[in-house]
Amino acid sequence: MTQPNNRRAGRPARSGRRAGASGTRPAILDSARRQFADHGYAGATIRAIASGAGVDPALVHHYYGNKERLFAAAMELPIVPGETISEILSNVAQEPGQSVGEQMVRSALAMWERPDVQGAFRAQLRSALTSEQAAVTLREYIAEAILQPVATVASGTDPERTPFRAALVGSQMLGLALTRYMLQVGPIAAASPEELAAAIGPTIDRYLTGDVG
Amino acid sequence: MTQPNNRRAGRPARSGRRAGASGTRPAILDSARRQFADHGYAGATIRAIASGAGVDPALVHHYYGNKERLFAAAMELPIVPGETISEILSNVAQEPGQSVGEQMVRSALAMWERPDVQGAFRAQLRSALTSEQAAVTLREYIAEAILQPVATVASGTDPERTPFRAALVGSQMLGLALTRYMLQVGPIAAASPEELAAAIGPTIDRYLTGDVG
Repeated sequence: MTQPNNRRAGRPARSGRRAGASGTRPAILDSARRQFADHGYAGATIRAIASGAGVDPALVHHYYGNKERLFAAAMELPIVPGETISEILSNVAQEPGQSVGEQMVRSALAMWERPDVQGAFRAQLRSALTSEQAAVTLREYIAEAILQPVATVASGTDPERTPFRAALVGSQMLGLALTRYMLQVGPIAAASPEELAAAIGPTIDRYLTGDVG
Repeated sequence: MTQPNNRRAGRPARSGRRAGASGTRPAILDSARRQFADHGYAGATIRAIASGAGVDPALVHHYYGNKERLFAAAMELPIVPGETISEILSNVAQEPGQSVGEQMVRSALAMWERPDVQGAFRAQLRSALTSEQAAVTLREYIAEAILQPVATVASGTDPERTPFRAALVGSQMLGLALTRYMLQVGPIAAASPEELAAAIGPTIDRYLTGDVG
């Protein structure tokens, strides 16, 4: 898996510019962490992060691509969750014969089986439970980077309910990750991915497209 | 709500015995915290806790009734969760015309609306994410004190699946508490208890009695 702070795909390194980069990247990441902590995920801007690091915004874009990737790099996440979720959802769309919910559960479990992903999830959650500032940032990040891609596969008669549908999916998926990997509650930790997909997939399907009141 | 470390109902205080109690109760609670940390919830015994506090096991029973209440007192929980859940479930049984799942969601939300309950939940979860020892204790406590009462209202053709059913309920309920109260994810935090009961109740019903694969 590509590290999120690698150079953005399609923009090859120019060797003439690399000399000063060794101190620039840490300065950008430090500034990003401060901005995310002080202004939340939604309020932090590439412009302000660049200004805090004393560099041009174009350089931040050049190194990290977008805010979501910069967040992943600053928080040392081993993946860019929103991109992984978008990948999962586009794979799901390619196999229309199977339940979307079952495929989402199976793919999410495959992502969470990685110890580095579990470690990052644990660290983010612990921060959010410890600091209100960190909770605000994580909440805004979940809303923007994770629930928005999920919302693209939700549908119903009332489009205003779409964010609620995506958040319901989030509540079950976070609860699954918490009970299986963090608390390791017996029967959930012992179940195979297939069993969990069969049991929880229909819940996800109903939250995405069924009657949610 | 009665504090869990109050004298057990039905056993009135005997004034002749109260004089020495001021140091005895803290000693019992200290010993309990050590035993729960060292041996988990399942492995800790009233006998060993009494021995660690230098008192007779009968005195521990006299003050705290049972291990579940002693755990609640030692962890400074504002309620005894298993007892609250059993109460909720017995109330549910009295209104057979309504969906069990909707009533469970509504009652759980009423319990979690209390700031002291949220604080205790946050503290327990943070400990479990910080210390593997605390995670073991919480996992065993959830299995014994919380999921066992939930399992009493689960049913299906395969009784061996009952613990899995109860754990599925736990995964959705914990995910709901996490997203609504800890992370405060927008649409889940903004929803009314009635909306959440309508949306999530059918999930709980299916986990308890429906087809879970």
